[in-house]
Amino acid sequence: MMPFTRITIIGLGLIGSSLAHAIRAYLPTVRVTGHDASPQVREIARRIDLCDDITDTAGASVVDADLVILCVPPGGMKAAAMAIADDLPAEAILSETASCQASIIAAIREVLPDVTMVPAHPVAGTENSGPEAGFATLFQNRWCILTPPEGTDPIAIARVEELWKRIGANIEMMDPAHHDLVLAITSHLPHIIAYTIVGTASDLEDVTRSEVIKFSAGGFRDFTRIAASDPTMWRDVFLANKDAVLEMLQRFTEDLTQLQRAIRWGDGEALFDHFSKTRAIRRSIIEQGQDDAAPDFGRHHE
Amino acid sequence: MMPFTRITIIGLGLIGSSLAHAIRAYLPTVRVTGHDASPQVREIARRIDLCDDITDTAGASVVDADLVILCVPPGGMKAAAMAIADDLPAEAILSETASCQASIIAAIREVLPDVTMVPAHPVAGTENSGPEAGFATLFQNRWCILTPPEGTDPIAIARVEELWKRIGANIEMMDPAHHDLVLAITSHLPHIIAYTIVGTASDLEDVTRSEVIKFSAGGFRDFTRIAASDPTMWRDVFLANKDAVLEMLQRFTEDLTQLQRAIRWGDGEALFDHFSKTRAIRRSIIEQGQDDAAPDFGRHHE
Ligand SMILES: NC(=O)c1ccc[n+]([C@@H]2O[C@H](COP(=O)([O-])OP(=O)(O)OC[C@H]3O[C@@H](n4cnc5c(N)ncnc54)[C@H](OP(=O)(O)O)[C@@H]3O)[C@@H](O)[C@H]2O)c1
Ligand SMILES: NC(=O)c1ccc[n+]([C@@H]2O[C@H](COP(=O)([O-])OP(=O)(O)OC[C@H]3O[C@@H](n4cnc5c(N)ncnc54)[C@H](OP(=O)(O)O)[C@@H]3O)[C@@H](O)[C@H]2O)c1
Repeated sequence: MMPFTRITIIGLGLIGSSLAHAIRAYLPTVRVTGHDASPQVREIARRIDLCDDITDTAGASVVDADLVILCVPPGGMKAAAMAIADDLPAEAILSETASCQASIIAAIREVLPDVTMVPAHPVAGTENSGPEAGFATLFQNRWCILTPPEGTDPIAIARVEELWKRIGANIEMMDPAHHDLVLAITSHLPHIIAYTIVGTASDLEDVTRSEVIKFSAGGFRDFTRIAASDPTMWRDVFLANKDAVLEMLQRFTEDLTQLQRAIRWGDGEALFDHFSKTRAIRRSIIEQGQDDAAPDFGRHHE
Repeated sequence: MMPFTRITIIGLGLIGSSLAHAIRAYLPTVRVTGHDASPQVREIARRIDLCDDITDTAGASVVDADLVILCVPPGGMKAAAMAIADDLPAEAILSETASCQASIIAAIREVLPDVTMVPAHPVAGTENSGPEAGFATLFQNRWCILTPPEGTDPIAIARVEELWKRIGANIEMMDPAHHDLVLAITSHLPHIIAYTIVGTASDLEDVTRSEVIKFSAGGFRDFTRIAASDPTMWRDVFLANKDAVLEMLQRFTEDLTQLQRAIRWGDGEALFDHFSKTRAIRRSIIEQGQDDAAPDFGRHHE
């Protein structure tokens, strides 16, 4: 059974365009309509034939949809909801893919208080953005977290769940607040740390930027990938998930201070014990298929 | 011209075994002798035919060498130098591959005050260790930093340089203290940060470890690779390069505090500006062939 017959995607960046590719690849009878606020993005989307139809206005894209998925940056979710408010069919389900949920759900609720909403955040991505960054297999074997607000129609939830399964994702259900805490540690803290360290390295006097680049294979280059992610999206994430991120930062800083002390006082045993504990997590991640077992992420050593 | 005819490698882990593979692949007429303090490692090295000869004692491995390369953890360098002191031919050149140099050179000098020493640190590696982790192409198009102490015979330097070029590396010369500062930012700081964040994530009460693993594709999994590196080697690196690491940690903490403040006070502009600056470095690293241009490190999305 097809979970939906007419899906509209608003925001055709990495996630929106990947969704379009995936739905057309794995559910070819579903009609996919797309819209993006940016005329350039719409033009590219038409040129690469991303959707069955690209509309110039948000309203026109949703008039006959049975599912609308907002894939705009977190800070644009409320505006995107406002732009479809007059045209959204009463029976349509609304979904969105934001990287943090509680505050985004609340913001959309202000604009669309009665809509049936099933947010779905795919924990998948690359450091690229824009309509040409997407590909159909991005969600294969990745987790997609559904965070429907309490009291949401179970049939609506089941339909959104079915859609994501069909395009390759595994499903997890979470309360929005818990989602935000989990993502604060597995995604938001790693990003703020990576952005920080790349900034620190750029601002040194004794070590030149060219040296930092040349010798980045010692570990630094791994952080630059994450720190090359979209600035708009990440600004929005940190503003929208402030409390959980600050909580994780606090814990991180305490732990770093402890290791720093061990270095200062030459406490090799404490360092060794800490460094021995962290290997097990990597092993589990690989066992559960959440990363490549190949050394160095399978990077090419020609 | 062959830079050396009989090379001895002491310590047959990732770097030592990669060197053995590389020398035998690219300089097949050179005779390679190996030794490791561990009987198990020697046994594996013999079984996989890593070297032309594996000796049971350090002394026996160096008696007819024209180059000896110590590839043991930084904390073992002095002991390794002591173990060969009686048998090292007077005209042999001594090299070592430690990830930090100034304090290691000083330690070796205490034991072998008159040796001709040309340290060579290849900025290349994977998260794996041990004699079976090595491969011949590890050093291809990577930088190898030579840090000969002042006054070292230029011919000795040129010969070690030639060896590393023949196995694929690019050469950079540096003063040992400057080397340690450059590596503190491009390698040691990234490692201590990665070890910290993986530890922080393991110790939460509200987010389970299974959730951390499941949703690690949001960014966290990148850090777990580095934090799976060898605990002994990294304990030694932080103890041996303490001052430079503490200096970089201090700067990092200041920068992190500033971003944390911006999050707390909702200063979206400051966040956006910072996140926009850090993209350029990634671009340069890729342009200079120091990382894969493929999104997500070229990870496989089946
Ligand atoms: N990237 C990831 O790894 C990832 C993973 C999971 C979830 N997410 C979430 O998915 C959402 C989209 O992320 P993304 O990476 O796909 O972003 P992206 O590549 O930057 O694309 C977002 C697109 O939405 C457009 N847009 C902005 N405001 C709009 C509005 N009000 N109406 C219509 N279009 C609008 C943008 O146009 P302009 O460029 O002209 O502003 C842009 O084309 C975000 O909420 C993010 O948190 C991202
Ligand atoms: N891994 C990297 O990414 C990397 C990159 C560049 C440079 N380096 C440097 O290269 C050196 C080797 O690193 P690695 O990653 O190859 O280490 P590794 O895989 O842990 O191997 C080190 C080997 O040396 C042996 N060993 C220890 N003390 C010894 C002694 N006194 N005499 C003889 N053998 C001894 C060890 O045996 P046991 O296991 O029994 O102790 C082990 O087999 C280190 O100084 C490191 O800083 C490492």
